[in-house]
Amino acid sequence: MSAYEDLMAFQRQTEALSQISGRLGWDQETMMAEGSAPQRAEEHAAMASVLHARRVDQRVGEWLEKAKATDEVAAANLRHIRRSFERTAKVPAKLAEEIAKTTSLAHRIWAKARAEDDVATYLPVLDKVVKLRQEEAVALAQGGDLYDALLNDYEPGATGAELEAMFRALRPRLVALRAAVLDQPKPMGLSGTFDEAAQLALSTKLALAFGYDMNKGRIDKAVHPFSSGSGIDVRITTRTNPADPFNCFYSTIHEVGHACYEQNIDEAYLLTPLGGGVSMGVHESQSRIYENQIGRSRAFTGWLYGQMRDSFGDFGIANEDTFYACVNRVNDGFIRTEADELQYNLHVLMRFDLERALISGDLAVKDLEAAWNDRFKADFGYAVDKPSNGVLQDVHWSEGLMGYFPTYTLGNVFAGCLNEVMRGAVPTLDADLAKGDTSKAVAWLRDNVQCSGGLYEPKDVITRACGFVPSEGPLLNYLEAKFSGIYGL
Amino acid sequence: MSAYEDLMAFQRQTEALSQISGRLGWDQETMMAEGSAPQRAEEHAAMASVLHARRVDQRVGEWLEKAKATDEVAAANLRHIRRSFERTAKVPAKLAEEIAKTTSLAHRIWAKARAEDDVATYLPVLDKVVKLRQEEAVALAQGGDLYDALLNDYEPGATGAELEAMFRALRPRLVALRAAVLDQPKPMGLSGTFDEAAQLALSTKLALAFGYDMNKGRIDKAVHPFSSGSGIDVRITTRTNPADPFNCFYSTIHEVGHACYEQNIDEAYLLTPLGGGVSMGVHESQSRIYENQIGRSRAFTGWLYGQMRDSFGDFGIANEDTFYACVNRVNDGFIRTEADELQYNLHVLMRFDLERALISGDLAVKDLEAAWNDRFKADFGYAVDKPSNGVLQDVHWSEGLMGYFPTYTLGNVFAGCLNEVMRGAVPTLDADLAKGDTSKAVAWLRDNVQCSGGLYEPKDVITRACGFVPSEGPLLNYLEAKFSGIYGL
Repeated sequence: MSAYEDLMAFQRQTEALSQISGRLGWDQETMMAEGSAPQRAEEHAAMASVLHARRVDQRVGEWLEKAKATDEVAAANLRHIRRSFERTAKVPAKLAEEIAKTTSLAHRIWAKARAEDDVATYLPVLDKVVKLRQEEAVALAQGGDLYDALLNDYEPGATGAELEAMFRALRPRLVALRAAVLDQPKPMGLSGTFDEAAQLALSTKLALAFGYDMNKGRIDKAVHPFSSGSGIDVRITTRTNPADPFNCFYSTIHEVGHACYEQNIDEAYLLTPLGGGVSMGVHESQSRIYENQIGRSRAFTGWLYGQMRDSFGDFGIANEDTFYACVNRVNDGFIRTEADELQYNLHVLMRFDLERALISGDLAVKDLEAAWNDRFKADFGYAVDKPSNGVLQDVHWSEGLMGYFPTYTLGNVFAGCLNEVMRGAVPTLDADLAKGDTSKAVAWLRDNVQCSGGLYEPKDVITRACGFVPSEGPLLNYLEAKFSGIYGL
Repeated sequence: MSAYEDLMAFQRQTEALSQISGRLGWDQETMMAEGSAPQRAEEHAAMASVLHARRVDQRVGEWLEKAKATDEVAAANLRHIRRSFERTAKVPAKLAEEIAKTTSLAHRIWAKARAEDDVATYLPVLDKVVKLRQEEAVALAQGGDLYDALLNDYEPGATGAELEAMFRALRPRLVALRAAVLDQPKPMGLSGTFDEAAQLALSTKLALAFGYDMNKGRIDKAVHPFSSGSGIDVRITTRTNPADPFNCFYSTIHEVGHACYEQNIDEAYLLTPLGGGVSMGVHESQSRIYENQIGRSRAFTGWLYGQMRDSFGDFGIANEDTFYACVNRVNDGFIRTEADELQYNLHVLMRFDLERALISGDLAVKDLEAAWNDRFKADFGYAVDKPSNGVLQDVHWSEGLMGYFPTYTLGNVFAGCLNEVMRGAVPTLDADLAKGDTSKAVAWLRDNVQCSGGLYEPKDVITRACGFVPSEGPLLNYLEAKFSGIYGL
């Protein structure tokens, strides 16, 4: 066997073990009894230790030195493996351990602090997390930008400066659009209760309508919906709330977007570095375009309205137009994960600026809450009422995930670009969606984005699909047109 | 850290990884979509390779040389680890691989052969399996008895000679009892259909009634019921058949017996070699005493009758006595897994004699079917009608599991002994069971059998619990008394 073949055989086992590790997480959130948690913690730790040993295995370094890429696929595989190997090599083992231990502790302290609205007990451990991640960034950046070094774990090739420029263009127009919309009378909301079994049945119908392959996955309930796994075993979860069936339906469609990306990757890449979504931003572009540009479109919601009437009878919404406005209703609110399509990115933009300032040292952890509250007031026009609705709301920083937040908005920006091109490529799109038929849309996304998996760099995936370098323009145009229409601006 | 502590830390991770491997199997039988099978096969192989590497890790040998046992628990841990390490060391890696490959192939050929009632295409690969297992037995036995070497994987310390003596004493009295019972008029059977959701609800009630802890496990449906896992995550499965609710209820109680054994082991042994059931025979003793001596007793079936009336209304059985006879009805049949308490051991005894003759070389694979059919006719009085009802019915030999079958009957023999002593120790037992209260019985089994896990050798576990060396007498006395009573012999 050649060095490349040896390396790939080793890597294939590593990928299989990673899949198992992910499946344990799925099991924990969906199936495992609560009393089993202490044992599961040891199982997770054992798998992490096995995976770590493989990541630092010196044979990988030797194979990488000798391996030669004979084609584009091999070159991409080597790029991924080299990136991961070099990343691990740059960070001292002691520091990596310290980060793992501290974030695990910080996560527990954060959960308690959020429940008790108690910022003070959280900030010391967050300060420790920030300092450790800065230290890691110094090791990774080797003289380059610290934030970029962290960002690249989630979005290879992206830079903070480039995102800053993009986000700076987004912010004023989003703030203005939001203010204009909230100045108008609110569309009607849902009222009453909606049978949960019927919600789940329609949720499954929606998953199938978007092309989710139940023969290579399954749908279960979870407190926080997620999708899990790559290759031919990609599972999703959803949730139900008797008062809010949209939560169920759009959680499902969002997770189906993530899951279809994984399911639609070329099967030749199964259990290789190319066999998973290429970045968080590209992943989010798929979940968001399924959920928003398709799922919350006038055409598709017209079909969904009929489905809901079939499932729940008359639920107090008189016609498709009212239903469309109801689905896309914009409300005041503090919480990112509950935000609508219009306001969501404003939540992300402020986190991006704040975490970048934390990592650069321009913002001290002790000043974080004040900075958060000032920024929120500036963009949303009202004050944060309590820390659990403000700086304590997200899990990310406690887990050390600085650099992750901007990929949410980057995904929305990508989705905006893809939507523009997809609408050109599928001229019958609205007529199809009005019948609940997403097949041409998801086929276009499969062939132009999803199937290449990790073959190209993230930004290149979108550039190849669109024929232009992605920018914030299409997303802004789309949002302004959509919400002006609904709110008669 | 001392050598013992190093070894135990390593072993603890190995045990955690084994639990994960078992959980993958559970997932495959209960949750995984069919289309995910090829990926799962690679995941299994990757875990097997990780576990194999740990089993042959030379550090284990070095630690074992230096480690000193300072108490009974440490001595037992070292005994288990040493046994497993030495077993692996004795078998050449090439032979182990060949066995794994051949049994995997044989399993597929067997499944097809059974479906098509085609012995001829199965025998060549079975012959190969037998020869490989003989070769392995030679490596393991180091001059000792070949069959014992295989048997000891499932029942450490047991010998074929000892089992032969025990089974020779069982056979004539079982054959005679069976013939006498089948000479009598048959008790009434069940008729009609039984709602499957109601079966599952009552099945869960039964599991709880026997002390199964749902906070450290769960119940799902599977084609072939099983229990899975050790420690504080022990899951069971059951099945439903609209015409046969007893299949569901007694599958559940059987698996609950296995699961409670695992759940009731001293938590101090979690993820150590002592943290699982000590042998197949002792395991089966627990599943069988829950299922038969308790679950099919006159007292407990009296309570179950009321439960079934509550769940299904009048189902055509007039009273508790008729119901008791119905539960314990003895039918003609070819299939071991469908056999009642009385006939079950006759199925096992013939397999034990046949597989022992295969391993010793006294019986050639080409003569196996004839030997099977002759023996069946002798013990059951009628001829096997087709191979899928005869020599092709069981999965075991295709998987190379020679030495496994006798542990089923050994478990029944152990259950017979335990039942005799338990009835003495719990004088109110029948009065309790008549109210569906198993608590004193399962507490006795927990304290006298289950909690010690792997601390003692299998036979010693039963001897300590009973105060005498286990033998076939109590089982025979119990069966003769029970079936004479039901059938008025």
